[in-house]
Amino acid sequence: MTLAESVLTGDRLALARLLTRVENDSPEGRAALTDLFPHTGRAHLIGVTGAPGTGKSSLVNQLALHYRKLDKRVAIVAVDPSSPFTGGAVLGDRVRMRDLSGDPGVFIRSMAARGSLGGLAQTTAAMTQVFDAAGFDIVLIETVGAGQSEVDVARLAHTTIVVEAPGLGDDIQAIKAGILEIADLLVVNKSDRPGVENTERALKSMLDLAHPTRHVFLHHGIEMTVDAPVPADVNAPMWIPPILRTVAVEGKGIAEVAEGIARHAEHLRAGGEWAERERARLRSELEALLQEALVKRFRESIPDGKFESVIQSVYDRHLSPWDAIQMLVNGGQK
Amino acid sequence: MTLAESVLTGDRLALARLLTRVENDSPEGRAALTDLFPHTGRAHLIGVTGAPGTGKSSLVNQLALHYRKLDKRVAIVAVDPSSPFTGGAVLGDRVRMRDLSGDPGVFIRSMAARGSLGGLAQTTAAMTQVFDAAGFDIVLIETVGAGQSEVDVARLAHTTIVVEAPGLGDDIQAIKAGILEIADLLVVNKSDRPGVENTERALKSMLDLAHPTRHVFLHHGIEMTVDAPVPADVNAPMWIPPILRTVAVEGKGIAEVAEGIARHAEHLRAGGEWAERERARLRSELEALLQEALVKRFRESIPDGKFESVIQSVYDRHLSPWDAIQMLVNGGQK
Repeated sequence: MTLAESVLTGDRLALARLLTRVENDSPEGRAALTDLFPHTGRAHLIGVTGAPGTGKSSLVNQLALHYRKLDKRVAIVAVDPSSPFTGGAVLGDRVRMRDLSGDPGVFIRSMAARGSLGGLAQTTAAMTQVFDAAGFDIVLIETVGAGQSEVDVARLAHTTIVVEAPGLGDDIQAIKAGILEIADLLVVNKSDRPGVENTERALKSMLDLAHPTRHVFLHHGIEMTVDAPVPADVNAPMWIPPILRTVAVEGKGIAEVAEGIARHAEHLRAGGEWAERERARLRSELEALLQEALVKRFRESIPDGKFESVIQSVYDRHLSPWDAIQMLVNGGQK
Repeated sequence: MTLAESVLTGDRLALARLLTRVENDSPEGRAALTDLFPHTGRAHLIGVTGAPGTGKSSLVNQLALHYRKLDKRVAIVAVDPSSPFTGGAVLGDRVRMRDLSGDPGVFIRSMAARGSLGGLAQTTAAMTQVFDAAGFDIVLIETVGAGQSEVDVARLAHTTIVVEAPGLGDDIQAIKAGILEIADLLVVNKSDRPGVENTERALKSMLDLAHPTRHVFLHHGIEMTVDAPVPADVNAPMWIPPILRTVAVEGKGIAEVAEGIARHAEHLRAGGEWAERERARLRSELEALLQEALVKRFRESIPDGKFESVIQSVYDRHLSPWDAIQMLVNGGQK
């Protein structure tokens, strides 16, 4: 039986082994991915992102428990160095993880390396495909949500949850700058802490900027303001990310988050956006693979040492980087 | 006079214009970069990275003022959404920025877009080259230091400063996971706050893990421990990142940081590492440009709509992504 076949029968050991091969981008891993690919496209991929300290690991944990009660199989992919799943966190988180370990309906996988071959987003995409093919209904992808690669990872998901917490102050602005536009749900975790209203208000005003619902127009020469949401297209109702409160360590608000996720999935399916996101995801995967294949083929086509000698010419300022590339790609012609 | 020539004469307006062209990756920008390239290789590139809230913008600000007193020309490239230079910060920071504005020996540039064409690291690399050619002695590159792209940006620098602050607690671990290995200097800013010793201790123990100086060996059957640093190569003394305290908003500790930077530059030059870093930097720049050129050439070589129809086949699960790429790259052969 091949590794892919074993994974399809539900063999956890084979699954773990395959994930390692995929992470190392081995030829065997790629072969298995190819075999598994026809079985993909069924899982709901949920990205959970936020700054360290927002408690998003606990939220992921609780969501997993929630879905287990509904008898859904849940995979967790942790690409956050501060996650207890990747080993960077405090004892409390580790203890809470025990709720999940030993349950055959749950599989937790952390990304060992950042910026590994093919890039973080590409490796994560391949891993979620393995889980998808292996029959996991829900794949939770946890990222730290600050850098571009984390944003790329979040883009893999059908539904992206951005987690915030009171008391992180001015930094909200920083974190949100790049990430708010990809948020489908906003969760204010640790909402039993002081400052929760401030955090909500900050998120709300940033949302209003991102999704303007206030319309100013002239009526008989008088400036009028309307505060109602006006969808851009009547046939495609707009999704306004809800702001939800949780206290994840106590399991508070989790059902509401799960309900928000379900409503978002319905919204995506109703408007055809689910298919659109799938397509966008496959497109960027193909683009990354294409890039890699082209570079590999090119590097094999030039003599050993050629690239090194070009680097030396650039280092000596005899060639600019741009001229060097023109020369290389156009076969010796500058 | 070309844009590049104007930049070389010290024309600030031309410099600003060129930076925009470079950021937009326009053909004119590339042409100018090519012309400027022979004039590069003189500036000291200093990366300053750390989580939002550590006050690294203030540190950058103060370092710039310090270098101005030594009559060095200073450029600041801010690639951090929370930086006052990019517009994400509180009033106090903006006020402090006035110390620098109006000084013709200082040029501040923020990166408008994240994940722009060619990638953040590539755009930043091109910008530092412009400043280098334009005769700036010091280029300070400020990044938020959490994601892979920020790490990539930091790798551009000869000297990388990682900024920490007391009271950010457990998150130190998170931030440091990927970043400690690239730190040449560690700065504990806001060191007048409580908890500074804890922060220092945490950094110290993480440094010890990264740069082990404790050697355990058997001597006549007894386990012995030596705490002295033993350089791997006697001819190349090891650089142990110093941990320095600052209160940047009051200018405290800045001279010591500048001295640490100078010592690090000496260390790099003495051991040949300066050239090594230059070479590594040019290598990754060439690799990124090569990738881009190959993809561009390939996309132009296939018929319009071909790539789209392949995406459709993958979406329909008729082809796996890997088979699709093999087919595309090998000209129709699966």
